Amino acid sequence: MFPSHSHPLVTAPAETAILSMLLAVSPLSRVELARRTGLSSTAVTKAARPLLQGGYLHELPPERTAPGAGRPVNPLAVTPDREFFAGVKISADALYGTVCDLRARMRVTGRRRLTARDPRTVCALIAELVNELLDSEPEFRERTSRLGIAVSGDVDRDRGLVRYSVLPGWRDVPLAATVAAATGLAVSIENDVKALTVTEHWFGDGIGTEYFALVTIGAGIGSGLVVNGELVTGAYGVAGELGHICVDRAGPRCHCGSVGCVEAIASSSAILAGVRLAVADPDLAFPGAVRLARDGNPAARQVFAAAGRAIGTGIATLVSLLGPERVVVTGEGLDTFDLFGAQIEEAYTAHCFKAAAKCPLTLRPLPWEEWARGGAITAIQTLFP
Amino acid sequence: MFPSHSHPLVTAPAETAILSMLLAVSPLSRVELARRTGLSSTAVTKAARPLLQGGYLHELPPERTAPGAGRPVNPLAVTPDREFFAGVKISADALYGTVCDLRARMRVTGRRRLTARDPRTVCALIAELVNELLDSEPEFRERTSRLGIAVSGDVDRDRGLVRYSVLPGWRDVPLAATVAAATGLAVSIENDVKALTVTEHWFGDGIGTEYFALVTIGAGIGSGLVVNGELVTGAYGVAGELGHICVDRAGPRCHCGSVGCVEAIASSSAILAGVRLAVADPDLAFPGAVRLARDGNPAARQVFAAAGRAIGTGIATLVSLLGPERVVVTGEGLDTFDLFGAQIEEAYTAHCFKAAAKCPLTLRPLPWEEWARGGAITAIQTLFP
Repeated sequence: MFPSHSHPLVTAPAETAILSMLLAVSPLSRVELARRTGLSSTAVTKAARPLLQGGYLHELPPERTAPGAGRPVNPLAVTPDREFFAGVKISADALYGTVCDLRARMRVTGRRRLTARDPRTVCALIAELVNELLDSEPEFRERTSRLGIAVSGDVDRDRGLVRYSVLPGWRDVPLAATVAAATGLAVSIENDVKALTVTEHWFGDGIGTEYFALVTIGAGIGSGLVVNGELVTGAYGVAGELGHICVDRAGPRCHCGSVGCVEAIASSSAILAGVRLAVADPDLAFPGAVRLARDGNPAARQVFAAAGRAIGTGIATLVSLLGPERVVVTGEGLDTFDLFGAQIEEAYTAHCFKAAAKCPLTLRPLPWEEWARGGAITAIQTLFP
Repeated sequence: MFPSHSHPLVTAPAETAILSMLLAVSPLSRVELARRTGLSSTAVTKAARPLLQGGYLHELPPERTAPGAGRPVNPLAVTPDREFFAGVKISADALYGTVCDLRARMRVTGRRRLTARDPRTVCALIAELVNELLDSEPEFRERTSRLGIAVSGDVDRDRGLVRYSVLPGWRDVPLAATVAAATGLAVSIENDVKALTVTEHWFGDGIGTEYFALVTIGAGIGSGLVVNGELVTGAYGVAGELGHICVDRAGPRCHCGSVGCVEAIASSSAILAGVRLAVADPDLAFPGAVRLARDGNPAARQVFAAAGRAIGTGIATLVSLLGPERVVVTGEGLDTFDLFGAQIEEAYTAHCFKAAAKCPLTLRPLPWEEWARGGAITAIQTLFP
């Protein structure tokens, strides 16, 4: 019924402008659409026609008819359940899945524990999870043709390839094609932090900002950047590598080969290694390290504090270079915010340059399902050229 | 003859696209223009008409008439001397001026030593210098209505205001309006590093890149960034503050109030302070510090080496976050490149994340006049909306 390769729904600039505007803000009158997109009313009416005919938009009853104002004003709205989008996030130990509607609302969610992490097993489990979600409602199965997968690491979105991931054995995995073959869906993939950044920019705290950043802390430390309204991808496919900027030339060696990276000081495994060393307990697990710090062990607390200073310094660097209007901080590292939050904020304030310091840090604990939603939004993006 | 407030020459998107394309690459056939801008040939022809009538473009003789190919092909070219643009750079001890043509070629240059640096004196001297340059050719005087001024510091381009500069007494100086009143020209102002970045992006090493950065080293350390083809200005007017990112939490205090900034380690005054301390000579001047290092004084050499490592680490940070295709390094600091170039490159390579390290650093010594050209290009930009 659906082709396994995705085609954009809209191609003309005017249609693109109108659909993307209405996905974020709906309903809007044609007049308001014209104002916000800079198109003429005629162009708006013409561009909306195929989207109305295709069922992606509908007209609401006239809002008001000003006397002598001519034709009544019928606002345009997105029809959220015209099409659904599956999304999956691959984490280190589980898959998280969702089905979203056109306005990116999660309509169902699910998860699968990963028993093995090789590409073959993971792809089979993705297909199983997605099929289960699509079968939960007949309309999902009928009107879902696009799946987006969010995965950490070096993702070649255009070629559907995971070039590198922290998952063992994942090198140059043709993830999109493999899952497309297993599900019959058109599959797009994206780096998980970038997908989440677009999610927050389109539908979350970043709405309406031209400069925006999302920072994730936890097992890895990364960031997604929006400049002049567009995601920063970098000329060589690398950008936003907040975890691998050097904040301390005398700091520890990082797994990337460099020295003093934020991630080498402040990732959960770096923190764990630091606490193990500080309390001379090589078998300590992360929850134990957290417990020690919360119980007031000074050595353990110092390790968390140093991590907080590294993160805050790194975010200040990002803000002094990029000048975002707002930074959202998220990731499972927020669970230990009580142990390093003060140091993050202190270092951020100390190192931010002048007016850039006006940029607020917003903490945003996001459940894993939000990352799956990021995958679904990668699929929604394929509606556009 | 000319209004003192500048109006864009082109406003329609198609005209804007054609003129900016031809400023960078000229001549081009209408077919080639259509291909590169994504416009239809009809739209190209229509948009070119007012520019031809206004004398900004001209048609070249037909290049070739393929048999049976219909109408002959007349390439379109910019008419460089249709309009001229004055540019000024305010440095700490002198003014540099130029008059450029439409294709940003410098047609004449000049300079004025600054005897005093208060805004009143500087504005009067700018008017004197610009008038002298415009009087050097009758066509300059006749066809120049726009002046661009490049100045270091915090510049509010939209309001024509220098909010803050290192020049003594420069706080909230209405530079654009003052010089406009003194010269009768429409005056636009821009931060000097941003102006130079746009110059290199439009007309220099950055042509055709979507991601580009320019780094200046010397008395100050800064950068200009281009992402997705557009200059990064930041939500709060701060961006590219490479000099004020922290690369060493245990480093020296910076004049900005923070600690371990690149500028606190690697600006010429930071280097001088370091060498003075290292050799216990509080009266040493910068040329003396350079001489000591070149003569092999180990303490002096170490100070330069540390500066190089700070600069290289800072550039690596910029590259790992932004992913530029190319970085141009310029500024008067290149004069001592023999003393810290190896350390810049070593630290850059060590700290750049993965594929981002493909980004080459290009050294580009630029005479002061190039900064004045940056001012003139700020004026050329006012042709556009």
